[in-house]
Amino acid sequence: MNRPFTRDLPVSTKRTIVRYTGESKVELEDAIATEYALTIFVNDQEMATVVCTPEHLDDLVIGFLFSEGVIRDIRQLEDMTVNLHAGKARVKTSTTVNFNQAFYNKRYIGSCCGKSRQSFYFYNDVHTAKRVEDKTQLSPLDVLTLVNHMEDSANLFQETGGVHVASLCDSDGIIETRMDIGRHNALDKLYGHAVRAGVSLDGKVITFSGRLSSEVVLKVGKIGAAIVLAKSAPTSLAIDIADELNITAIGFVRNGSFNVYTHPWRVIDGRAEESQ
Amino acid sequence: MNRPFTRDLPVSTKRTIVRYTGESKVELEDAIATEYALTIFVNDQEMATVVCTPEHLDDLVIGFLFSEGVIRDIRQLEDMTVNLHAGKARVKTSTTVNFNQAFYNKRYIGSCCGKSRQSFYFYNDVHTAKRVEDKTQLSPLDVLTLVNHMEDSANLFQETGGVHVASLCDSDGIIETRMDIGRHNALDKLYGHAVRAGVSLDGKVITFSGRLSSEVVLKVGKIGAAIVLAKSAPTSLAIDIADELNITAIGFVRNGSFNVYTHPWRVIDGRAEESQ
Repeated sequence: MNRPFTRDLPVSTKRTIVRYTGESKVELEDAIATEYALTIFVNDQEMATVVCTPEHLDDLVIGFLFSEGVIRDIRQLEDMTVNLHAGKARVKTSTTVNFNQAFYNKRYIGSCCGKSRQSFYFYNDVHTAKRVEDKTQLSPLDVLTLVNHMEDSANLFQETGGVHVASLCDSDGIIETRMDIGRHNALDKLYGHAVRAGVSLDGKVITFSGRLSSEVVLKVGKIGAAIVLAKSAPTSLAIDIADELNITAIGFVRNGSFNVYTHPWRVIDGRAEESQ
Repeated sequence: MNRPFTRDLPVSTKRTIVRYTGESKVELEDAIATEYALTIFVNDQEMATVVCTPEHLDDLVIGFLFSEGVIRDIRQLEDMTVNLHAGKARVKTSTTVNFNQAFYNKRYIGSCCGKSRQSFYFYNDVHTAKRVEDKTQLSPLDVLTLVNHMEDSANLFQETGGVHVASLCDSDGIIETRMDIGRHNALDKLYGHAVRAGVSLDGKVITFSGRLSSEVVLKVGKIGAAIVLAKSAPTSLAIDIADELNITAIGFVRNGSFNVYTHPWRVIDGRAEESQ
């Protein structure tokens, strides 16, 4: 199964809007991000409807199936068809998958994460997130540069302001960028790309335009990257999970500064100042 | 059923972080937004797990149940208990509710929205969103002022940068503000408050700190407000739904300007400039 879908739908449309600046108004054309609903069927069973940006839908579906633990090896994927007009993706797997509607989105508190009672609250996550052993490091300048480059590479983000961006990087720069109106989708598209292309996750970094929620950190752990760089704030649970999974979580990367929340040894030592 | 839960868990915690400015680093304490998992049971059946900020959980649960169409009248709610330690909310309803796991999150394309094939893609939404007939209007200055006041009223937002904020307002100012790490939760908490407090939705406006996705506009339609003011970008589907539900959708409210995407007659006419 290595057949890419070459067709995408338009990822933005022009609309006539009224822009006010103070009390003055003007009518103009503006670019708006497309929002598209894709329903995923696995072996003829309806699994989920994903609301997304309609490009790289093959990466999205594959990333979603890996992320939910439905498949664990690309060879399990026998066929996939996407009907763009109907908004349906149909997947055939070669083996019986462990997808179980009864477990999907059900809570599960495992014993694998002693520090936080709530760390692994979705059943599927217990089976798909793993501790990252990678020893890769970045300099402070790398951190700032990678996030800047991610934003520069994202046209739709600049054009509409309405999408999240995620990039797979190493210390030399950006390898691949994906965008989506859904935060998880942008990461699932990266995951799907990495799986399809057979990209090794050794020494890899993920940059992300949004906040670091627990679900974002879990997704990074599933993909297998050691460092995540986000433009915005983390949550407490995201920090707990990053700590447990041995992921270096960095947030608020903007205006030449950033915060390291977990495993700061992966940032090559800067000059220490007096603590304030 | 009009018993508020007075106890909340801490909505933020202090963590030791490493802050880099360029290559200089300093260790300091920072406030991080709490992320908390709450599993909702309705008549002993597990319905969903909501990841949220642990305050106003009663408003959250009630707003969620209304939003999903599980209950339509506060008198259907016979009892509710929240176990903060276990992260579980148990609801008893007086009548058999129309909650059906088979329909929950299942796709449904209705004929109620001719312009956009995809407008109503979740079954429950077809039964809970309704066209808003309210004729209320705002001046351009009202629009800018309400969004500024929303941000001023949100301490956690200012402290952690990690939460979404939503306010219920009228043209005189903010009536109530709710915060949450989840965008939908902030709106569900407002919805729950409005239902519990018996607030009339006539002439009401909702302000929101994030983007205008279809789900946000649907939620505004369910609550019954005529105008939504958001700080960030809309999606195409959000605009289609706002158009159909007769909601005035305004985005990018920042730095003294804003964009009106639908039903601009609810903004009291400004001075027209030459179209660019």
